[in-house]
Amino acid sequence: MKATIVTIGDEILIGQILDTNTRYISQALNRIGIVVHQQISIGDTAQQITTTLDQALSTTDLTIITGGLGPTKDDITKHTLTAYFNSELVYNQEVGDFVSQLLARRGIAFTELNRGQAMVPKCCTVLHNAHGTAPGMMFERDGKIVISLPGVPFEMRHLIDDKVIPMLAERFTLKSIIHRTMITSGIPESLLAERIAAWEDALPEMLHLAYLPAPNIVRLRLSAYQVEGQSVGKIIDQQFELLRQIIPQAVVGFEDASVEQLLHNALIERGEKLSVAESCTGGNIASKFTAMAGASAYFMAGVVSYSNDAKSDILGVNPELIATYGAVSEQVAIAMAEGVKRVGKSDYGIATTGIAGPSGGSAEKPVGTVWFGISTPERTFAVMKNCGTDRGQIIERATAHAIRLLYDNL
Amino acid sequence: MKATIVTIGDEILIGQILDTNTRYISQALNRIGIVVHQQISIGDTAQQITTTLDQALSTTDLTIITGGLGPTKDDITKHTLTAYFNSELVYNQEVGDFVSQLLARRGIAFTELNRGQAMVPKCCTVLHNAHGTAPGMMFERDGKIVISLPGVPFEMRHLIDDKVIPMLAERFTLKSIIHRTMITSGIPESLLAERIAAWEDALPEMLHLAYLPAPNIVRLRLSAYQVEGQSVGKIIDQQFELLRQIIPQAVVGFEDASVEQLLHNALIERGEKLSVAESCTGGNIASKFTAMAGASAYFMAGVVSYSNDAKSDILGVNPELIATYGAVSEQVAIAMAEGVKRVGKSDYGIATTGIAGPSGGSAEKPVGTVWFGISTPERTFAVMKNCGTDRGQIIERATAHAIRLLYDNL
Repeated sequence: MKATIVTIGDEILIGQILDTNTRYISQALNRIGIVVHQQISIGDTAQQITTTLDQALSTTDLTIITGGLGPTKDDITKHTLTAYFNSELVYNQEVGDFVSQLLARRGIAFTELNRGQAMVPKCCTVLHNAHGTAPGMMFERDGKIVISLPGVPFEMRHLIDDKVIPMLAERFTLKSIIHRTMITSGIPESLLAERIAAWEDALPEMLHLAYLPAPNIVRLRLSAYQVEGQSVGKIIDQQFELLRQIIPQAVVGFEDASVEQLLHNALIERGEKLSVAESCTGGNIASKFTAMAGASAYFMAGVVSYSNDAKSDILGVNPELIATYGAVSEQVAIAMAEGVKRVGKSDYGIATTGIAGPSGGSAEKPVGTVWFGISTPERTFAVMKNCGTDRGQIIERATAHAIRLLYDNL
Repeated sequence: MKATIVTIGDEILIGQILDTNTRYISQALNRIGIVVHQQISIGDTAQQITTTLDQALSTTDLTIITGGLGPTKDDITKHTLTAYFNSELVYNQEVGDFVSQLLARRGIAFTELNRGQAMVPKCCTVLHNAHGTAPGMMFERDGKIVISLPGVPFEMRHLIDDKVIPMLAERFTLKSIIHRTMITSGIPESLLAERIAAWEDALPEMLHLAYLPAPNIVRLRLSAYQVEGQSVGKIIDQQFELLRQIIPQAVVGFEDASVEQLLHNALIERGEKLSVAESCTGGNIASKFTAMAGASAYFMAGVVSYSNDAKSDILGVNPELIATYGAVSEQVAIAMAEGVKRVGKSDYGIATTGIAGPSGGSAEKPVGTVWFGISTPERTFAVMKNCGTDRGQIIERATAHAIRLLYDNL
């Protein structure tokens, strides 16, 4: 079974918002064995919606549309679908009652526009939206399915998880799609490809290999489409085991685990504690750890010591060190790492101090210069790395490098 | 002039990565007056690339493709384009020399696969990629342009900014596309639409109004396509001024400024300082501020006081308060806000303490319960809000609410 995902909205075409709905729906469809064939974003015009539906219905079995279901005049998806399926809009009492209750709970009056949201095409099956005022709708023609969902991500996700996926999984007997990813580090993509060429050439025909390069990391994904899940899962495991024997030092993990997830798991398992002192990364390292459920088992404290006073007052960095060597220095990075380890009563301390720019750089310490301090139960050390030229890039790279440094020194 | 943006890669179709390239390219094209007509993501198959190129060339004047230019076997974009344009691959000495120098600087050997990256279709114009091993390529047929760029976001962005946009802007005389956005808060979308209906109906025909709802906020965007920029800009300003007179209390800003940006600007202008104490938001609030260039002018310190000890040791929260009322309480939120204001020597303190889940909730304090403390030069207070059920959602909502609370109490 193949699917098309269509997102509708001028705000996507002009780049005002980033479309995250498509990825969410793609993951959900893959999990139940539906192949996403294409993803299309178009504007709020009836002609484009109609043309795209024609193309999607002639190419794939299932089309999922998000967006354009709001109460205002710029949203035309529902009217276009009604015309496309030669239907008419009728008032749906159940939707109307639900919307008026929902608005009443929020203390908002039920308007004529909200009444319009309870009008649905006569020919569709309504998918109840428990979290918003625009219902989902399902249409069928010649064995093909078209599903229209609101574009608000939160509402869309609930409709996908609670209505669409259970319905599709029950109605169709689908084979599996399997994706497994091995994470390697330390071998550049082109060298890696040469090292594993013989293994790649000998892969069973059903397995597709993809290389996904990122800074310091190459992910290798094996995919199999529309297969018997369990047996193919075992074949992939065997292939990855063969691969591991070829590049044993380079394998750092599996699936899409990030280094912070590996560290998270390791610290929980070892019962050890971590605290983080950040200057240039400004809380980004702390937020990576605390985003993971269970972080409170090991994450004790984070200190964003942006000012020099904060470095001294909170972390106990000797002000003379800052005066002598500057805030961005090996000495201060070490003092910050030791300071936060002590203040946070932890086994490990991470510290960053650098120049995120755009201003503040000098010939000796240009924008992008970052000192990293790592304090472990055994020792404390600092290393310097230039993390680029753009503020956002510097923050992200310094965050990744700091986490990697601790992981390598656990 | 109309454009199609095509991103190629199975990793996008299966939802393994989020496509951010399309948005970047869309924004860049809009700025120089090129209308993005459609955005399409497809897999790494020659047939799909060919079909999509046929459709794009018959619909729009410019097609920009990213992805599928890596050195490994799963990347087939270059070979497919070579066949599509009836060309042949030839070795490009300049690209080859650059790639070997680039790899040498990184201490990586130049392999046969890298040599393959210096092979380019004879008929294309090479766009020099100063940041990676895969060059950009430009093709022309019957007055239509096709540009192929690497999918690595960093390399793609440099090619767009340094090569593609200057070339297009020089070659074509384009009218302007104008988007201006007014940010409103406090009036739900359907009520807002009723309040401003007469204004909306009287808008000049060239202006298109879009409603962009988000939690607590509705953005109103006026767009005009292929117009004389300066004069239409003035017309939009006049229309927004009329609108402001209708809903004076609701207007909180313009363009896509976030509340943290408004606060950032206000604090710099007023010369006031801010420090932040975070429990459940785990550094996310600090990282929002410190991501903005110039934050060091007002951002003094952030404390991620995840453990109870950190709340007492670093922020000076009386342990008895925690023992009596619990860490997630009005009293502790107030003590944290006052504590971080004092420790960070600031004019304002923000504090969050809550239950981000998935565990840690109780009947009395379910997952999602968050107490917010705000300390200003005049007073300190705390409010409670339930921020949802999902850990990521709770962190994001609590972050947005905390920033909004301070903004409203500046």
